[in-house]
Amino acid sequence: VNGKLIIIFTLCFASAFLHGSNYFFAVVYADLLPALDGDAKTMTFLQEVVDILLAYIVESFDRETKVIDFHYPNELLQLNNWELQHEPATLDDILISCRATLKYAIKTAHPRYFNQLSTGLDMVGLAADWLTSTANTNMFTYEVAPVFVLLEYVTLKKMREIIGWPEGRGDGIFSPGGAISNMYAMLLARFKMFPEVKEKGMSSVPRLVAFTSEHSHFSIKKGAAALGIGTESVICIKADECGKMIPADLERRILEAKQKGFVPFFVSATAGTTVYGAFDPLIAISDICKKYNIWMHVDGAWGGSLLMSRRHRWKLDGVERANSVTWNPHKMMSVPLQCSALLVREEGLMQNCNQMHACYLFQQDKQYDLSYDTGDKALQCGRHVDIFKLWLMWRAKGTIGFEAQIDRCLELSEYLYNKIKDRDGYEMVFDGKPQHTNVCFWYLPPGMRYIEDKDEKKKRLHKVAPVIKARMMEYGTTMVSYQPQGDKVNFFRMVISNPAATFEDIDFLIEEIERLGHDL
Amino acid sequence: VNGKLIIIFTLCFASAFLHGSNYFFAVVYADLLPALDGDAKTMTFLQEVVDILLAYIVESFDRETKVIDFHYPNELLQLNNWELQHEPATLDDILISCRATLKYAIKTAHPRYFNQLSTGLDMVGLAADWLTSTANTNMFTYEVAPVFVLLEYVTLKKMREIIGWPEGRGDGIFSPGGAISNMYAMLLARFKMFPEVKEKGMSSVPRLVAFTSEHSHFSIKKGAAALGIGTESVICIKADECGKMIPADLERRILEAKQKGFVPFFVSATAGTTVYGAFDPLIAISDICKKYNIWMHVDGAWGGSLLMSRRHRWKLDGVERANSVTWNPHKMMSVPLQCSALLVREEGLMQNCNQMHACYLFQQDKQYDLSYDTGDKALQCGRHVDIFKLWLMWRAKGTIGFEAQIDRCLELSEYLYNKIKDRDGYEMVFDGKPQHTNVCFWYLPPGMRYIEDKDEKKKRLHKVAPVIKARMMEYGTTMVSYQPQGDKVNFFRMVISNPAATFEDIDFLIEEIERLGHDL
Repeated sequence: VNGKLIIIFTLCFASAFLHGSNYFFAVVYADLLPALDGDAKTMTFLQEVVDILLAYIVESFDRETKVIDFHYPNELLQLNNWELQHEPATLDDILISCRATLKYAIKTAHPRYFNQLSTGLDMVGLAADWLTSTANTNMFTYEVAPVFVLLEYVTLKKMREIIGWPEGRGDGIFSPGGAISNMYAMLLARFKMFPEVKEKGMSSVPRLVAFTSEHSHFSIKKGAAALGIGTESVICIKADECGKMIPADLERRILEAKQKGFVPFFVSATAGTTVYGAFDPLIAISDICKKYNIWMHVDGAWGGSLLMSRRHRWKLDGVERANSVTWNPHKMMSVPLQCSALLVREEGLMQNCNQMHACYLFQQDKQYDLSYDTGDKALQCGRHVDIFKLWLMWRAKGTIGFEAQIDRCLELSEYLYNKIKDRDGYEMVFDGKPQHTNVCFWYLPPGMRYIEDKDEKKKRLHKVAPVIKARMMEYGTTMVSYQPQGDKVNFFRMVISNPAATFEDIDFLIEEIERLGHDL
Repeated sequence: VNGKLIIIFTLCFASAFLHGSNYFFAVVYADLLPALDGDAKTMTFLQEVVDILLAYIVESFDRETKVIDFHYPNELLQLNNWELQHEPATLDDILISCRATLKYAIKTAHPRYFNQLSTGLDMVGLAADWLTSTANTNMFTYEVAPVFVLLEYVTLKKMREIIGWPEGRGDGIFSPGGAISNMYAMLLARFKMFPEVKEKGMSSVPRLVAFTSEHSHFSIKKGAAALGIGTESVICIKADECGKMIPADLERRILEAKQKGFVPFFVSATAGTTVYGAFDPLIAISDICKKYNIWMHVDGAWGGSLLMSRRHRWKLDGVERANSVTWNPHKMMSVPLQCSALLVREEGLMQNCNQMHACYLFQQDKQYDLSYDTGDKALQCGRHVDIFKLWLMWRAKGTIGFEAQIDRCLELSEYLYNKIKDRDGYEMVFDGKPQHTNVCFWYLPPGMRYIEDKDEKKKRLHKVAPVIKARMMEYGTTMVSYQPQGDKVNFFRMVISNPAATFEDIDFLIEEIERLGHDL
């Protein structure tokens, strides 16, 4: 095999070198593997794609490059032929399509891309994702994914140890994202209290109510709608000025619900809210959950990663008392999308809650230990392999590498906060140092700073962030998110999860906001 | 930029050449991008990974290679150090981990891998998946995934045209798999009939019942359990000997449910059942659904792709009358995992059903057409980009390329069926030519063929397939699935979705079953 491979490699590089990119003009998909003698053409083609990708990666990290080459949807539709055809294209056309797709893509690896909670591109994570695609398998059974199933087992155990559950015991699963992880938690909480709901449905149980802070993620309500609980049964608990749930209000609303004859079954505390980055007081909440015998979930999709930092993990003190925890390594740990874990304290519950005993997938008379066939505890049947990129990055960085990366992002956000909190034209949305990397602020253009009429000022200020954001995208220099919240008009929410960002990039962001907004 | 890239490329290949694999012994993740001057080291590292992957790909298609190098879980745990450490590893260790992971992986591209409905590895699909990982973005808004959002729009429209909805109108989404797509359908059906369920939950609606055939996929029951409907409210309709739902039984059970005061809201017909590959009679079912005003869903996760074949699409006649269709291109069309679509006839329903108006993600005052922000119609918040691999493969093959690939798989299964139906030692599980590529059969070892006692024979036959399968995995020569069904003892379910398979591989499979099973 080795000799054959060397010959193929040589042939492939030689042909690519001799023919240049015109080579692919005459080659079509049918020439590639599994075509007979398709080896060399396949390798040449894949190598050409890789060259495009490597060039894109290097470009993405280059600050001289635009974050985005923005076009409106109707323009973008005209810029290329995106239609699907009856006839095959040449591989040359396929390479052109790859280049066009990347040309108009967002450069999420760019050091000045701050738009989402998931930013940056990790090189080891990327390599792992390429390998995952190549292995192209499914997580439901050990039989078809032996290594990945073991790595999921090893990694989930490690994550549970970090949460603080004794000997890392418990259960868990990697799901297609934080919203689904949160939905799993709600499903488990309901099943734990009323196992008959699986067979008999919601009509067999009393009116259930869930509690979460008014600053929590919309997936809690989405989950309640899907699970037949209904959004009106999600009671929003007041948050303080910094966005933290107020435990006294939680207890008051629980008592109120009980008086109405409703059954409180689920409290979702947030560790790192989406907008403010606030951490709910988990110890106080867990005391209340214990007192009233309610499932305590911690939505740490965004903030869970702080558990890896010795300096910051105190913000999640009490998390070990939770019944379940959502933790998305694809956010603060920069694992490529998608990578979200739900961790569960009780063993066996997921299996009992979700299993359907489909004998065509989970045969009970196989030769190996069936506890490794994890598929029947999932809501999904097929499940994408999301574990390898996290596992490989963890190997490459070590726990201390993740810690350093997280600490650094928090340092950058503190730098931003310190820099703008007393700067002319800036107003912070809430007082005090942010707990996560979220820095929320208004930028007031010079002409707006001294408007006396408060309503007029608010009205005009509301329009500032959208215009600056639109201009950022037109120029392609940087991207940061904005939104209103409650009665607060549109403000910028800066978040830093991008390991490529530096102090200079923070300086740049401030200058850019002022450059693009001073005339408003 | 180009000049810089050429220099980097040269450096990277030169250094890799000079140092060989020892080069990475001293390199760690912190040397890679975004490290200053990390370009060359990053490209050398990624190229090294790609070389490992290319070698793996070529090997995977080689019939001399094992499909799997099988080890029991406890053995596999010993064969490598899979533990996560506090300290970082060198990149050399990372490359070793990549090689070990692939060494023990299933070669899903192998021409003799028939174990699942998803088999094979498409080279253009793989290239597209590598690009997707590199672009590392999220489907929720046009802002962060302009091209991918447009391609999803274009592709879903095309799929709806193929279903036969006028001008391809309607809605749809790519979800993390068929189970979730089916759950979406059930959620939409419930919302369509009782929109108040979103706010008020299941306690506001009468007892709902869903119908599906006894041969349908377990995700229908899983969905009902999750949505608070309960598995007992999923009524299993009798199937005929070939696995097709019997419409008269459906109507009978609907009337029965109505008499009990239950509300039939959802019928899931299956186009291509998991085990038999049966197609439910969609026209007759749609007549009943129309008569009783019930949402008709077609679970075409496995069989939906036959819509692309002029020769076979008659098997789905009536699909255009459905309200929703699940169709997984990651199965019969060999798109890399995961790629599952839910298509919906009514426009706007998904949005109304699932939206939560989270203003921090779906700002209403952006500069572009907000109808391209598709995130709020999803159950998920973040959503993985699954579209590009399907779109790029479609470009490369054309519609006719997919058609040829599908027709060919069906031809191979017909060849298998014809070859074994009258062969000594084989018994078909159901009579007649299979409609999909599923061929279900028992292999009776010579010593078992003339046992008179039927119970004894059944009992012994039940143990044959598991032993042959275990031996296949030990030898690593091929993999095929088996299961019992109802009162039928363990039988082989052969399916062909692997474009690399040939007539010779079918011959091989038969010989291998006989070689491994003749002594039983």
